[in-house]
Amino acid sequence: MQSPKRAALLGASGYTGADLLRLGVRHPGLKFVALTANTHAGKPMASVYPHLGWAGLPDLVANEDVDFSDIDVVFCGLPHGASQKLVAEIIEQNPSVRVIDMGADFRFRNAADYGPVYGADHIAPQLQDVAAYGLTEHNRESIKEARIIACPGCYPTAALLALLPLVKAGAISTDDMIIDAKSGVTGAGRAPKQNTLMAEAGESVTPYGVGVHRHAPEIEQEIGLAAGVKVAVNFTPHLIPMSRGELVTAHVKLGNAANADAVRDVLKSAYADEPFIQIAEKGAIPSTGHVRGSNYCLINVFDDRIPGRVIVIAAIDNLVKGSAGQAIQNFNVAFGFDEATAIEALPLFP
Amino acid sequence: MQSPKRAALLGASGYTGADLLRLGVRHPGLKFVALTANTHAGKPMASVYPHLGWAGLPDLVANEDVDFSDIDVVFCGLPHGASQKLVAEIIEQNPSVRVIDMGADFRFRNAADYGPVYGADHIAPQLQDVAAYGLTEHNRESIKEARIIACPGCYPTAALLALLPLVKAGAISTDDMIIDAKSGVTGAGRAPKQNTLMAEAGESVTPYGVGVHRHAPEIEQEIGLAAGVKVAVNFTPHLIPMSRGELVTAHVKLGNAANADAVRDVLKSAYADEPFIQIAEKGAIPSTGHVRGSNYCLINVFDDRIPGRVIVIAAIDNLVKGSAGQAIQNFNVAFGFDEATAIEALPLFP
Amino acid sequence: MQSPKRAALLGASGYTGADLLRLGVRHPGLKFVALTANTHAGKPMASVYPHLGWAGLPDLVANEDVDFSDIDVVFCGLPHGASQKLVAEIIEQNPSVRVIDMGADFRFRNAADYGPVYGADHIAPQLQDVAAYGLTEHNRESIKEARIIACPGCYPTAALLALLPLVKAGAISTDDMIIDAKSGVTGAGRAPKQNTLMAEAGESVTPYGVGVHRHAPEIEQEIGLAAGVKVAVNFTPHLIPMSRGELVTAHVKLGNAANADAVRDVLKSAYADEPFIQIAEKGAIPSTGHVRGSNYCLINVFDDRIPGRVIVIAAIDNLVKGSAGQAIQNFNVAFGFDEATAIEALPLFP
Amino acid sequence: MQSPKRAALLGASGYTGADLLRLGVRHPGLKFVALTANTHAGKPMASVYPHLGWAGLPDLVANEDVDFSDIDVVFCGLPHGASQKLVAEIIEQNPSVRVIDMGADFRFRNAADYGPVYGADHIAPQLQDVAAYGLTEHNRESIKEARIIACPGCYPTAALLALLPLVKAGAISTDDMIIDAKSGVTGAGRAPKQNTLMAEAGESVTPYGVGVHRHAPEIEQEIGLAAGVKVAVNFTPHLIPMSRGELVTAHVKLGNAANADAVRDVLKSAYADEPFIQIAEKGAIPSTGHVRGSNYCLINVFDDRIPGRVIVIAAIDNLVKGSAGQAIQNFNVAFGFDEATAIEALPLFP
Repeated sequence: MQSPKRAALLGASGYTGADLLRLGVRHPGLKFVALTANTHAGKPMASVYPHLGWAGLPDLVANEDVDFSDIDVVFCGLPHGASQKLVAEIIEQNPSVRVIDMGADFRFRNAADYGPVYGADHIAPQLQDVAAYGLTEHNRESIKEARIIACPGCYPTAALLALLPLVKAGAISTDDMIIDAKSGVTGAGRAPKQNTLMAEAGESVTPYGVGVHRHAPEIEQEIGLAAGVKVAVNFTPHLIPMSRGELVTAHVKLGNAANADAVRDVLKSAYADEPFIQIAEKGAIPSTGHVRGSNYCLINVFDDRIPGRVIVIAAIDNLVKGSAGQAIQNFNVAFGFDEATAIEALPLFP
Repeated sequence: MQSPKRAALLGASGYTGADLLRLGVRHPGLKFVALTANTHAGKPMASVYPHLGWAGLPDLVANEDVDFSDIDVVFCGLPHGASQKLVAEIIEQNPSVRVIDMGADFRFRNAADYGPVYGADHIAPQLQDVAAYGLTEHNRESIKEARIIACPGCYPTAALLALLPLVKAGAISTDDMIIDAKSGVTGAGRAPKQNTLMAEAGESVTPYGVGVHRHAPEIEQEIGLAAGVKVAVNFTPHLIPMSRGELVTAHVKLGNAANADAVRDVLKSAYADEPFIQIAEKGAIPSTGHVRGSNYCLINVFDDRIPGRVIVIAAIDNLVKGSAGQAIQNFNVAFGFDEATAIEALPLFP
Repeated sequence: MQSPKRAALLGASGYTGADLLRLGVRHPGLKFVALTANTHAGKPMASVYPHLGWAGLPDLVANEDVDFSDIDVVFCGLPHGASQKLVAEIIEQNPSVRVIDMGADFRFRNAADYGPVYGADHIAPQLQDVAAYGLTEHNRESIKEARIIACPGCYPTAALLALLPLVKAGAISTDDMIIDAKSGVTGAGRAPKQNTLMAEAGESVTPYGVGVHRHAPEIEQEIGLAAGVKVAVNFTPHLIPMSRGELVTAHVKLGNAANADAVRDVLKSAYADEPFIQIAEKGAIPSTGHVRGSNYCLINVFDDRIPGRVIVIAAIDNLVKGSAGQAIQNFNVAFGFDEATAIEALPLFP
Repeated sequence: MQSPKRAALLGASGYTGADLLRLGVRHPGLKFVALTANTHAGKPMASVYPHLGWAGLPDLVANEDVDFSDIDVVFCGLPHGASQKLVAEIIEQNPSVRVIDMGADFRFRNAADYGPVYGADHIAPQLQDVAAYGLTEHNRESIKEARIIACPGCYPTAALLALLPLVKAGAISTDDMIIDAKSGVTGAGRAPKQNTLMAEAGESVTPYGVGVHRHAPEIEQEIGLAAGVKVAVNFTPHLIPMSRGELVTAHVKLGNAANADAVRDVLKSAYADEPFIQIAEKGAIPSTGHVRGSNYCLINVFDDRIPGRVIVIAAIDNLVKGSAGQAIQNFNVAFGFDEATAIEALPLFP
């Protein structure tokens, strides 16, 4: 086995950063030499995340205290907007470093699409040329070569894993796609907010971002690219009283497939060799509990009562397959490790 | 005020029965003289439901030990199938008793529709003539006169409150109605089942009954009646890790209304004088937490990214407005009490 | 019935304030004419608490915008420290107004005890002379007369209801009292904090304030007063992944009582006529779920494996009997209403 | 590395069985060749536990269909009582097989103690001679040699890890030990029961087995053995609304240690070289969330307000360190593998 890659993690105090460490510290090909969290600089990791106290990690430092010339790979867990400037500097000043970004800044293939969605123009649009959209199962070739790997949003990951093969095959129509989604509260991050307090989010289900969520244009980009047409999708997320887990319930019209069985067959073919994607047996219903804490994705298809429609359901863990796990999967692809290294753990159930 | 009505509750050991007691014991026009629960006959209520220990209720008895000639109103919380035979006997042998059924047995206006959905022919189809569909806000006149009031299912209650006025007004189309629904675990009842164990239902979101749930035909019946056409709807319920609460996210096509604002206006008009229905202000998102434990229903409408579509969202408490609360509301209508009596308590938040 | 008392609520945006309104708006003897929340001044209540949208409440204003000369009773839900100054002004400038404080500022009978516990000297110690400690069942006479009623902390309410009659009767010893307590997250308030985020507090049990919680000296004050000696108690609270509810598990040594049965009998006698306190039957285990949302308190006693010891367990809802409900109960006592008015609703279970 | 041991798992449909597979299938020294679950015999594992669908496991069979002559190690996840007979047969008929029992049948060093606690005499008392009590950190030498390794109960594991070194050192007294414990619902198993339904256990904290729980005598056995005297402990467990996790809050009297710092030092010394036990820094509070899904144990010590007492708090995952993880740790010790193999994954937080 090759010697471990020297890694920096930017934004180690967020949930995706912490989950990357949870998984990554057991990766024989990864050595974390710098962890940043500007507001916690100087602290031991165990004081910010006691569950990482067993990991023997370096103390947190500020972003500006990292010597990136000594780094092979930068994992970036910074909020959107924050990573653009820093990543641009790192990429330009360190010719051999590669960046795996778990944030939103490099997900739009056309950087001009970024501003309208995220409220400010992209400041490093030129980097989009060296960036790959990191939906592993669908973009391995570009991931292998890219300087920047932009990991998809959690919702796009689940939605696209479920729908992309169907769109590519023409099995479903791109008209009138209704993507009703449900997520645990970790998707909202660790910064204290009233709506993710246990007293508010607990024992309730609450839609949010109805019609305006930022993951909708990202889904539309990839569906549109696969279909060769511009598409608009309904994307309606709901906050669920649980920590982890994401479920996409896609209500779609049939294309050239006759029914749910035919649609399921298309997915089974498309993912036959994929270690992390499982198409469930007919009738078995995916639950987020079946993938908790893991990099796996469970999908199934059901007939609708409305003729000509099917319901495609996909479950992932938003922090793992939807973020940190997929980031490691992409690292494995990009650096030539076995793709399942460090993310092969089975789901934690119950 | 008139003297209290003498009431029997059949099936007092189920969640809907218990919630009916929670509310009903504070009703000045109700006196519970018989509570049945065959498997618990002989026990004090406090041993089955400690939270009712303060209520001074009679001990549980078997159904056959109730003297119905002495009763004004029978609330029925029995499982579907079980109530038909018993209600038929009660109705036929006691000319003045009226029945408010929280179960499914009298919800189909045409008793022939019952068999295919519930798996056995209806044994008292003749009673359908004296039964009213108890969606209070839409059927007050028939509820006032009926011998049997069939309270709607919990999902139909939420879905129909949100959609019926829009269908009646032509504001939305009846084509392609996608009703994605979410419910707490009390909807599954108190009988121990593996899938509603906390270890299984907790920290997970799981669809169920996809395409085959029994509430779909009930919704179709009422939508179809209002529209004057036969309709098929997509109805996709999900089990949410919470006890109470039900959210309906209806993805529908516009009819003669131009957009979400126009649809909201139709609802505001329709429900202007209703004490229990609130159409939220533009942008305010209904949550089940906002109606927990109460008889209220909160509704709002949002524009979809797909042109020509809107998203109508309604939140109720499945055990109250979706069952026991609506039963009391119907009792109030049927027996001439102020409609809000005993169900005017505000929601329990958090 | 007397005409409604005109009430102001200070701190209407906190959980205790909101719960006071939930209950109080249905009180025929209470009319809320002013609600304050400085950071939300000008907003309708429904925008801060959608579940109160049905209550027809006045909009929020700043504290300084209230005309207290027009008020009969002030309910105070401000944080400790904040209420002292304001309450002093109100009391001194408005001779007939009475204050029911749900905060901590007037709970110490000797104001000199306040500083060491709350970190700043009390600025209105003279008011302690007109204040009563508002543990309703044990202090009715002083509550009837007091200008200020200092409602006990939530933990002291549960602990004292369980232990005070036993200490008074000598049934248990005051040596070595171990009070292991468990609370839902609403006890921490609505201000966003990392440790009460659902992702942090959910699916976990976490002790807090071990050995240093501010409710310990309050418990010691009242136990000591009843026993006539200075006492020190072990008080160890735990944060439980639920919104509401508080359980006190008191591990205590027997005094003159022989065993758990004898201890239970002392409690049964002491609370025989109390509408809100129930001593459970032998063997029945109190759960917070049995009192959720209500003003009730459920207590039972168990033999310990260690000879000479018993375990006394009490369950309350921290926001109701532990705060807003007890405040209304005290209002009823102080203003001559039936003591159960507006707080007689049964617990919400499940 | 030695070739993989051939393993059978009896009781693969329970939670501890499933968690043993979750961890064990990634163990390079373990090959599961037989999984039993009599009521599910014939089914694929994925139909009973969808989260294990990725594991490539054999289908379930009945106990009697296993050829134990072909097995190196039997993991037993059967209920107490059920394993005695089967284990006796296996041990007697297969001279080289070793058994790691996660159930209660071989935990009492004197088999005569079994009957009074579990309600039936032990039918294979002679096997107690070849059994070791599998509290790994305290019994490695006997575990290495034993035919049967009796993994401790989940509560005894947490309590003994926290208290045994202190008792051995005389740092604390064995008089008056109050062990107030809290557990998630998985401790109650997967068989549907009313009290572990989400609607019942959710949003509530409920004591159970007060004074009579079967883990108390087991704790007393080991404490007594270490102290050289017979002891009685208070053991009071509570059901917490979470799936996994167990917290022991032990309220104990000081022995020869002066205070919490001194007690903490004793633990730090005792566990200095232990990979799975961490004594937290002064003031850091253990939470079950910090060990979820992992084999780790986090302990800390706090001064009590009552002079001469301290509070020792330990957190584990009841299914891992409290059962399946410790079973694998014992397997590693018994068969000469690195002790952390397959159980080194960090906790899943949040």
